[in-house]
Formats: sequence, structure tokens, C-alpha cells
Amino acid sequence: MKAFICGFGTIGQGIAQVIAEKEDYFQERYGQPLLIVGAMDSKSYCFDKKGMDAAELLENKKTTGRVGDRTYTKPEDALDSVDFDILIEVTPTDVEDGGVGMDNIMYALNHKKDVVTVNKGPLALKYREIMDLAEENGCLIRFEGTVGGAMPIINLCKSDLAGQKIKSIRGIFNGTCNYILSKMDNGQPFEQALKEAQQQGYAESDPTSDVEGYDSACKVVILANSIFGRNATFDDVDITGITSINADAVALAKTNGMVIRLIGEVSATKLEVAPRLIPKGHPLSLPGTLNTAEIITEYAGPITVSGKGAGRLETASAIMSDLVAIMDKRIGE
Amino acid sequence: MKAFICGFGTIGQGIAQVIAEKEDYFQERYGQPLLIVGAMDSKSYCFDKKGMDAAELLENKKTTGRVGDRTYTKPEDALDSVDFDILIEVTPTDVEDGGVGMDNIMYALNHKKDVVTVNKGPLALKYREIMDLAEENGCLIRFEGTVGGAMPIINLCKSDLAGQKIKSIRGIFNGTCNYILSKMDNGQPFEQALKEAQQQGYAESDPTSDVEGYDSACKVVILANSIFGRNATFDDVDITGITSINADAVALAKTNGMVIRLIGEVSATKLEVAPRLIPKGHPLSLPGTLNTAEIITEYAGPITVSGKGAGRLETASAIMSDLVAIMDKRIGE
Repeated sequence: MKAFICGFGTIGQGIAQVIAEKEDYFQERYGQPLLIVGAMDSKSYCFDKKGMDAAELLENKKTTGRVGDRTYTKPEDALDSVDFDILIEVTPTDVEDGGVGMDNIMYALNHKKDVVTVNKGPLALKYREIMDLAEENGCLIRFEGTVGGAMPIINLCKSDLAGQKIKSIRGIFNGTCNYILSKMDNGQPFEQALKEAQQQGYAESDPTSDVEGYDSACKVVILANSIFGRNATFDDVDITGITSINADAVALAKTNGMVIRLIGEVSATKLEVAPRLIPKGHPLSLPGTLNTAEIITEYAGPITVSGKGAGRLETASAIMSDLVAIMDKRIGE
Repeated sequence: MKAFICGFGTIGQGIAQVIAEKEDYFQERYGQPLLIVGAMDSKSYCFDKKGMDAAELLENKKTTGRVGDRTYTKPEDALDSVDFDILIEVTPTDVEDGGVGMDNIMYALNHKKDVVTVNKGPLALKYREIMDLAEENGCLIRFEGTVGGAMPIINLCKSDLAGQKIKSIRGIFNGTCNYILSKMDNGQPFEQALKEAQQQGYAESDPTSDVEGYDSACKVVILANSIFGRNATFDDVDITGITSINADAVALAKTNGMVIRLIGEVSATKLEVAPRLIPKGHPLSLPGTLNTAEIITEYAGPITVSGKGAGRLETASAIMSDLVAIMDKRIGE
């Protein structure tokens, strides 16, 4: 099988590394390798139908800032350069119009390629359209890493909890906000906690997407569509971020044995992101940068899962499980 | 597809009910029903190749104590009575020799039938032999409900975390012990906590299997074999139960910010069940009857999952996900 990696920042480099490390795993499970035949970043690309050395790609990127020697004007020129089976789409999320990620995914599906993505934009904006196109063209598309990073949730609901209704999911889907709110639990003001999150590398220099709840909103939309069969988009989410939470609110919560957490909530009828009072000791009161979800099921009651919501190898872990699922179907276990 | 249910106690009745409730689900997903063509309890059986009404089976059992009119001398006489595709094996666990569950599973595999089971005995005693026979005869066998009840763990590790090494799993795999230990956290002596667990229906009148750690031991063996590719049996587990834990030990733990929990631990080299000191606030410090597991992974770091470890519909939920997985493979999604 042949993969093309779109996006060669932290996540793209992580999955290239992991695919290389797992050479023996693929060989043993499928009797064939998973080759990286193409890779592109925001400007450059490279390809080789015989497969490329991941270490070399990483070294190129590190020394030149470019994954390849070639420059493209339209992304499809890069994608046209070599035949591949699976698109690994890991360009940055854009919730305005889906950005280049949307174009890349559409290109792949229109060319009957399978897709693994962690890009939230396209799925938060045009989920149904993308899934319909995939089905029409016989493509598999998986996106475990779009929600919760390394924390399994989409495939967990669809496979491990198959055959029963999921009633609702409530979760902490943004580690940056949770880090800030945990710091505020200990008396830090919002601004200082945010600054610390930025220093620790948890928050971007422009933290809007995190602290305004937009990132969490993308994730609940994807859950609404993939788990609850809804046809929702980003604009359908009621979003309240954490910027207006002050020390008084946190202190008042504390005197009542509660903490404030940014909770995404989704069900057949709900689609919300908002700060919520959570009793201390409740699974959703967890401090730190982990993501956590509480899944309320028809027969199994509540199932709780937590894991690292972001990170180079953590996200690669979600991508790997999707690659394996696709290769299991295409080649057989 | 046609199922034969072996064992018609709490779990057998639960899965019969759920299969009936999900008639439309099967029809929609597969274009055909999942028929219950046979059912047996410890003495009686019944069959109908056209499928039987679950409500009637439950009513029979309730009013007569028997699932069917017919009496068998050897279980295989019941299994011989009707053609079926999937054996649902939910007789009680027997860790001496696997009991009737072992015979039923062997019968099914020898007759090229797929198997879903929550019976821990056969898999804790002869895992490798059973898997080899299944593979030889082209049978699928799934057993999510043997560990953690409704809490997804086996399929979670094998599918959702596919493509990376699982380094270790530590967990609370017995809700009864956890209930008792939680009560002891609050100052109750062991005997009183056990009595309360029995009154609440969490502990059997003979609580040996739970409090001596045998039940947890079965579960870690199954994880060792299914997740870590080991060839372990029940006798390989280092087992210490909770009967020797006294109020002093619990109080001492408490003064150090710890609680005592019965932890099952498994890795490529470890296979243990023992009471452990767990810091308060750690996922494994959870009070109550839930099961919890902390899965340490190669790329994703720790993933934690928790859910109800037992119960009629909770266990049926695990069985359902296995039935769906088998039918997906046999019929296609």
C-alpha cells in the first residue's frame, strides 16, 4: 500500500516517523509494507513510487524547512505526481472554508483514494458531503484523531459499543482550556494561566481557537455527525468559551465542592460547548491537559475514557489505528 | 444468522432480551435478522430453526425455572438439535476445568461455528488451544465481556490502539472488591463491608472467587494472552486477595493520601493480582463498583477507560458488540 502525507508539520513528521518504525509490523500483518510515496508541506513536495525514507524526509524538513525539492503552485499538482492508495491529511484545521485540507480530501475521494485525517475543518463544515462522496466512490475514510487526539472515542463508540444507542457524550475536548482552568482552580488569574500554557507549549501564540471554544466545537460537530448520525456543521454549535471566567467564579465553585470545566456536549438534540460546574471527583473534573469523555450508553450505562488530546506521537497513534483499520479491510488481517 | 444461547441465567436472559430489542437494528444493518434458534440452561433446552420469541423464553424461565420443555443428559444433545452459526456461551465461569463452558466452546469450534463468550474459565485455562482450534476451523471467537463487563478493553486495545505496542495494563477488574475496599476507606471493617456487598447483590453468598482475587486473575490471564500474545494460564498468576486487609492498613494508607485497591497488572513479563497503594485522585483510586483500566501505550501514553463491570444488560452490551463484529465479517457492514 502507498501513502501520501499532506502536511509535514509536527503531526506529519510524527506519522512519517511512526510508519517507518512500524515497518516490520506492516510486513508481518499484511505481507507488504506501507510505503510513503509522496509528502507535501505548504510549499514543497517530493515523491517516489518506490517509497521514501522517513528519516531523510524529517532531515530535509529540519535542515531546509521544506519536505522536498519541488515547489507546487496548486496542491493537486503535488498529488498528481505519484500514484497512491491512502491520503494522510494532516494540514492545519481551517474552520472558515476548510482550507487546503478540504481540497486535498476532495481530491483524494474524487480519485477513489482512501483517506485518514486529523484535520477537523473539512469534517466540521461538510461532513455529510464528504461521507457521501466517499461512499459513492467506494472510499474508506477514518478520522479518529480529529477528536480527543490519542483518546479513542469515535471508533470506540462505533465498534466497541456497536449495537446499542449512544444517548449522549460529554467531554473535555481541549487540553489547553483544561490546563488554564486547572491553574485557575489553584488561584491563578486567567491571563497568567494562559501565559503559562503558552510558555509550556500547550497554547498557540494566538489562543483564540482554544479559549473561545472553537476547537471544542469542531469536535462536538464531528461526534454529532459520526456517532449520532446528525447533519450538523460548525455554525450549529452553541459556543461559549472560557475568556469570561474570572477568579470569583472559580472561587465560588470551589466553596461548593465544584470546579469549572469547558465541556462539549452532544446528543441527538444537543450541540453545545460551554463552561460547566463539575463536582470534584467526577471524571470530568480531571485537572491538566488530558482529554476525557463520558459516553452514556443504552445498555452499558456510562463509559468513561481519557487520554492525551494532542502531541506528535499521540496523534500519530490515532492515525495508525485508522491506517490499520483501512489496511485490514483492503488487504485482510 | 442463527444463534444458540448456552446458559440462561442473568446474562443469557439479558442477551436474549437485547437481541429481541435490536431486531430492527440487525435487519437494517444486515438485511436479515439474528435469530435465536436454540437456548439451553443447566437442565433444559429448546430450539426452533425458524427462531424463537425471546419474551416467551424469558417467561418460560421465570414461571417454570426452565428455558425449554426438553431435558438433556449431555449438553451436545441440545447443541445437536438445531443448525446454528454463532454460539453465545454464557454459562458460569469454572476455573477448575472450564466446566460445561469449555465443552460447549469446543463443540462449537469443532463444528465450525463462531463463538461469543463471557465465560472466563475456558479462556483462563486453555486460551491458546481454543484460539488455535478456532483458526484451524476458520471460526471467529470474541470475548470482550470476559474482562471488565461493559468496559471496552480487549477490542479497544486490539482495534482502537492497533499498530502500537501496549506496554502494560493495570486495572480494577472486580467491582465487588472495589466496593468493599471503598467502604473500608470510610472506616467499615472488612466483614461488615462484605456483608453489605452481599446485601446489595454485588457479592455472591460464597464470595471466595471475588475476595481471593481469582476472578481478577482470570481477567489478567485473558488480557495477557489476547493483548500481549502470551501463553499463560490461571496458575501463572501471582494472586493475593483482599481478605487480609484490615482497618489499620486502610487508615495508614489514608494518612499518606493513599487508598488500597485490588489491582490486576499485566505486561509482557508481569501477571499479578494484589492489593496496591494508589494515590487519591489517580484513576485507579476510583471508589464504587466500576471497573477501570489504565493502558500504557507506546505512542499514546496512558489511556484510561472505565465502565460497569457486571450486570445483566451491561454484559449484554459487550456481547452485542462482539455479535456485530462477527456479523460485520460474515455478512459485511
